[in-house]
Amino acid sequence: MSLAFEEAKKAKLMGEVPIGAVVVHNNQIIGRGHNLREKNQDATAHAEVLAIQAACRTLNSWRLWDCQLFVTVEPCMMCSGAIINSQLPEIYFGTRDPKAGMVQSLYQLLNDQRLNHQVRVSEGLFQKESSQIMQDFFREIRDRRKKFKKSKQISRNFE
Amino acid sequence: MSLAFEEAKKAKLMGEVPIGAVVVHNNQIIGRGHNLREKNQDATAHAEVLAIQAACRTLNSWRLWDCQLFVTVEPCMMCSGAIINSQLPEIYFGTRDPKAGMVQSLYQLLNDQRLNHQVRVSEGLFQKESSQIMQDFFREIRDRRKKFKKSKQISRNFE
Repeated sequence: MSLAFEEAKKAKLMGEVPIGAVVVHNNQIIGRGHNLREKNQDATAHAEVLAIQAACRTLNSWRLWDCQLFVTVEPCMMCSGAIINSQLPEIYFGTRDPKAGMVQSLYQLLNDQRLNHQVRVSEGLFQKESSQIMQDFFREIRDRRKKFKKSKQISRNFE
Repeated sequence: MSLAFEEAKKAKLMGEVPIGAVVVHNNQIIGRGHNLREKNQDATAHAEVLAIQAACRTLNSWRLWDCQLFVTVEPCMMCSGAIINSQLPEIYFGTRDPKAGMVQSLYQLLNDQRLNHQVRVSEGLFQKESSQIMQDFFREIRDRRKKFKKSKQISRNFE
């Protein structure tokens, strides 16, 4: 999970929402990814999807049997689906996402017995760090917006 | 939808589950895709994801506002999430997927008011064709498996 967190830090440095993920097979990292939505202008470029795609390339297989995914934040709908579609048996996530998390927060999609695959889920590894980096990121964005509004107000006063 | 169906036929010719999708913007096709899971050995290579990625490239934007997605089969969890993440306002699908469909069959995920985006959904365009090509595909697979088992049985009888 520390390597997933390193991926999240890479995303933050690029101005992306700081989420990172790695896929492990036989104790080896076979795929890693961090959020690249803004840089790539691609709605699907979430950390988990990129890590899963990389892992599929490494194994030359769309089935990620005997693999584990580690991700700093609870997966969204798309990433939960990518986990199901790749038949990953096990994931670990750091902190919950109460607004869009589909593994525990809004739904428990990875444990739906009607689907042809279920996933073992563990949470809480690197919870504080994963939560803190997200909070810091969004606070910085809010601060920047406030400063921008204030500077606009000041420039209007001089017009 | 006829172009989405053309994409599904391309998938069938390649031995892939025959599903096709297109994204339309101002009456222009800006992204198209067909299922390439087996060829690419990529669990994320579903028709909708590929069409959305292509549309993002065309617009150089992860936000697919004012776009419509046409897909021959009801989207799965991953593709429903990709639709939400790209903020597509409207989708049309051909036929339901009772085993993994997340738009009407198992859940109505695109209409969850707790998420920051909802999607208008229409279904039934090219329903018969989209359903038939899927049924034919899976029947052919079953027939091939039966023949394979039978030929194995015959060869065993001669051993």
